[in-house]
Order: sequence, then C-alpha cells, then structure tokens
Amino acid sequence: MFRERMNTRILGENNLVINRFFNLDGRAYEGGSLSVKTKELLGLVASLVLRCDDCITYHIVRCAEEGVSRDEVFETMSIGLIVGGSIVIPHLRRAVDRWDEAEKLRG
Amino acid sequence: MFRERMNTRILGENNLVINRFFNLDGRAYEGGSLSVKTKELLGLVASLVLRCDDCITYHIVRCAEEGVSRDEVFETMSIGLIVGGSIVIPHLRRAVDRWDEAEKLRG
Amino acid sequence: MFRERMNTRILGENNLVINRFFNLDGRAYEGGSLSVKTKELLGLVASLVLRCDDCITYHIVRCAEEGVSRDEVFETMSIGLIVGGSIVIPHLRRAVDRWDEAEKLRG
Amino acid sequence: MFRERMNTRILGENNLVINRFFNLDGRAYEGGSLSVKTKELLGLVASLVLRCDDCITYHIVRCAEEGVSRDEVFETMSIGLIVGGSIVIPHLRRAVDRWDEAEKLRG
Amino acid sequence: MFRERMNTRILGENNLVINRFFNLDGRAYEGGSLSVKTKELLGLVASLVLRCDDCITYHIVRCAEEGVSRDEVFETMSIGLIVGGSIVIPHLRRAVDRWDEAEKLRG
Amino acid sequence: MFRERMNTRILGENNLVINRFFNLDGRAYEGGSLSVKTKELLGLVASLVLRCDDCITYHIVRCAEEGVSRDEVFETMSIGLIVGGSIVIPHLRRAVDRWDEAEKLRG
Repeated sequence: MFRERMNTRILGENNLVINRFFNLDGRAYEGGSLSVKTKELLGLVASLVLRCDDCITYHIVRCAEEGVSRDEVFETMSIGLIVGGSIVIPHLRRAVDRWDEAEKLRG
Repeated sequence: MFRERMNTRILGENNLVINRFFNLDGRAYEGGSLSVKTKELLGLVASLVLRCDDCITYHIVRCAEEGVSRDEVFETMSIGLIVGGSIVIPHLRRAVDRWDEAEKLRG
Repeated sequence: MFRERMNTRILGENNLVINRFFNLDGRAYEGGSLSVKTKELLGLVASLVLRCDDCITYHIVRCAEEGVSRDEVFETMSIGLIVGGSIVIPHLRRAVDRWDEAEKLRG
Repeated sequence: MFRERMNTRILGENNLVINRFFNLDGRAYEGGSLSVKTKELLGLVASLVLRCDDCITYHIVRCAEEGVSRDEVFETMSIGLIVGGSIVIPHLRRAVDRWDEAEKLRG
Repeated sequence: MFRERMNTRILGENNLVINRFFNLDGRAYEGGSLSVKTKELLGLVASLVLRCDDCITYHIVRCAEEGVSRDEVFETMSIGLIVGGSIVIPHLRRAVDRWDEAEKLRG
Repeated sequence: MFRERMNTRILGENNLVINRFFNLDGRAYEGGSLSVKTKELLGLVASLVLRCDDCITYHIVRCAEEGVSRDEVFETMSIGLIVGGSIVIPHLRRAVDRWDEAEKLRG
C-alpha cells in the first residue's frame, strides 16, 4: 500500500526531525490516563474538523479495531460536524462509508 | 460578561438558523453513548487544532467542572499538539494557564 | 450518486444532532431578506476560501440553477481568490470547469 | 489608527508584489455585475468562515456604509455560522457587537 | 494538461482582478534579495502547512528545476511537518513521491 | 514573560509527548543543509499563512537576530501574502510593526 511504502521511504531518509515526529505520533495514541479508545476518538474528531480524509480513514479503522460502538462513532462525528460546520459534510459522508466497511470487516 | 451579554443579544434577534444552531451546539455535548466528560475532551481537542482561544477556554472550564483529571487534560492537549503542530503552542500555553486557574477554583 | 446515497444512510442513523444540522443547512439558503441567488453566492465564496471542492461544486450547480450570470460567478470567485490567496487557485480551476458544464446544461 | 499607519508604512516599502496586492484588494470590491453591497456581504462571509476579527470588522463597517439592513447582515452571518460551525461563534459575538455600533453611528 | 487548459480558459475571461492576481503570483517567485531557489522553498513550506497537494506538486517540480538538493527538500518538509503537525503527513507522503519522480527526471 | 513562564510550567508536567515535541520544535530550526537563516524564513512564511501572531513575532525576532535584511523579510512576507491572501493582511501589519522594533533593537 502507498501509505506503508511511503512511510518506509520517508523513514529511510534518516531526517532526524521527521523520524522522531513519526515516532512521537505513534506514542501520542498509546493508553495512559485516557484509554486507547478515547484517544482514537480524539484523533477522529481532530481529523474531521481539519478535514483530512486520509487521517479520518486511519482513525475510523483504529476505532473499529478498538471496539468503539456505532453510536459512539456517530456522536463523535456529530461533535465534529457542529464544531467544524457544513464544510465537514463531504468528509462525514466518506467517514460513514469507511465506518460501514470497517464495521462489516470486524463482523 | 461579554459572552452571555452577546448570546442574549444574538438570540433576541430571532434569526431561525442562528437560534437553532445555538440550541444544537448545546445538545451536541449532552451525555449519550459517550459521557459528557468524553464529549468535553472531544470539544477541547477540536478547539485546540482549530486554534480558537475562546472555545478552548470554554471546554477547559467545562472539563474542570466534569471532574477531568490533570493528566487526562494534558494527554488530550498532547494529541491536539501532535495533530495540529507547533502552531498550536501559543494556544497550549494559554490553555494550560486557564486549566491551572480552573483546577484551583474547583479545589 | 454517492452524495445522495450517503445522505440517506447518515439521516437513517437518527442521530438527533446530525439530522437537525442537515435540516438547518438547507434552511440557511432559503430566501429571506437576501435572495436565494445572493445566498448561493455567499455559499460559493465561503466554500472557495475554505477550499472544499464538493461544496464548491454544489454551490456552482445551484448558482447555475438560480440564473446567476457568468460575470457574477467570476466576480464572486475573484473575491474568493483575493481573500483566500493563491492556495485557492487549484480549486478555482475545478470550479470554472464545473461552471462551464453547468452553464452548458442550462443552455 | 494602527491600520492606516501600518498601511502607509507597508506601501512606503515599495515591494512591488505587496503594493500591487493591496491595490488589487481594493479593486475586488468595486461594483461590477455584482453591486458593491453584495460584494461586501461576500467579503463578510469569507472573513467569518476564515475567522479574522479585523477583516470582519472592516466588512461590517463597509456593509453599514453601503446601507445593508440588519436582517441582511444576520442572514449573511447565519450562512457563515452554518458553513464554518461553532468555532465561528466567538467571532460572531464580536461581529454583532461591531454591527450594533456601526448601525448606531449611521443613525 | 488540465492545469494549463484551465489557466488559459480563466485568463481568457478577462476578469481584471483574477488576471492581475495570476500575474502577481508569478512575480512573487522571481529572484530579488532572495534567490528563486529560496522562494520556491518558501512556496513549498507554505503549501505544505496549508495542505494543498496541487500547490505542493508545483513547488516540488520547481525546486527540482532550480537545483535544490534532496537534503534541502527534506529539511524544508521537516519544518512544514513540525509547524503543521501530523495532519500534514498524508501530503508529505505524496510530496516525497513527487520529489522522487522529479529527481529521477532531472537525472 | 508569559511565554517563558508557561513553557517552564508545561515542561514541568513531564508529559512525554509534549516535552519531546517541544524539543523537536527546537531541533527543526538548527542549521543543516539549509542555514539557520533560511529555516527562520521558512518558519516565518508558514506562520504567516497559518495566521498565528505569536509564531510570527517569534520568527521575526529570530530573523533579526540571524541578520536577515529588511528586503529579505519583505520578500518573504510578500510570498506569505500571495499564498495566503488578504486574510493575511492584519497579521502582516503587526509583523511589519514587530520587524521595525526588532530592526531598531539590533541597531
């Protein structure tokens, strides 16, 4: 996949700042006082209001893996919609489509 | 306070779209499948990455009222920082200052 | 179409906040003191500066339906370009392409 | 005023790109197929969704000068609110405050 | 190509504001106190933090033409990543892919 | 100063992600293939188009310290203005005011 292939290529460049940032990006979502699940919901709402489809897809898939329920995802998306406005709607459509796929996959 | 005074003046205008939006904005943070506390954390991280000090202050105060712990707030802010980048830092400084005040107030 | 199919699926979820927001989004563009046409131009310029192709396409089509002239659309787009800067240009290209199609369709 | 004083200082620098941009910024709001009034409403909604208080204030004052009615301003702001979401609300409060002042001034 | 075809169509419309803006956009990157190369790096980092793939691609190609080195591009991208945060990463992946192509082309 | 006081307080919290991010933010502007001076110009233009006054002020001061010339700063700001549009102008006014102060200080 493009995502994995490019990550490998980017990290292989050995730019200290970029490589540490990628590492830190992973650490930010590890469980702590907040659960991994809550952190993925935080990542999802942040991605929604900033309107980045790739980031939304990533957190949608992670939410499904972490056992987030359909209602929890929709409530998170409703906050993203209220905060970010109608400009979020096209991303919401794609997010729901991804969620339906991810939900089907986990059975 | 300016916030309350202007809300009254805006709602008194009776613009249907604006008034319903204000109402909906309140509903979005009511407890459901997700707790009020989690929803306030979602509001906080969304406000951080969109860099709105007034919105951050509002959710910081609400988080303190809902019993969010200091570690939970810092973990939420760390996700906002990673997602939104260094451009978030000036808002992070003010957010932490507000949090310290709000924490002191609740004792 | 994806847009309609997803709207149906989203509304069928019966999330109160999302459904009311979708309803409100429709109401905002109804005629009042400002004409429907002027409101569509407002929607277009807002979509341009926020750089959302789906939203731009939607308002371009609505503008064509409301009888907006070619010059009026270009003047609206020129304001979007000045306010939003060169980062708007890729969206401007696609917007003009959509407008030419929509203009052809209305004959 | 700071605004005028800095404009003079900036233009006095004789940077060709900046000076031409400032000139172009003025031209964009001149009457054409769209009236000056409609163009000021476009400038207002674009400033609202991009959340720039100085720009909002400028267009609010210009709207008042061009004879825009209170209802027209509120309908424009309602579209800005729907498109841009609740993150716009703090700016909406200040915008309405400015509008009330500007309306009082024109009598 | 779509880019060139649409530019021709847009400029052919003879909207004074749009045409002068396009001209000014070209002038901004001409050599002055800063070299063309440095200006292209400025254009690249601005496009990265504003997350516009078309603009990123344009400046990546121009950087390659101006003899920017691989390390210089990665250092510029590392600043874009730190300033703009993880929301920049999907654009970074595509930017590196474009750079690898552009570097191959110049041999 | 508020900036330093809050940085100390934030780092004292010992949130691993936040502390490493602050460290990385410093590393990103160290000299490498690109000079410190060029990196500060990159930081300035990124801050301008993202419209963060605190970040702009920081990089303006650093540019003055690194011996950037007045023309180089204005050319960098002209690119920020073209890329980001008129919404950048209020920040440009404050940036030029800061630059004039910083220039006076370095004599």
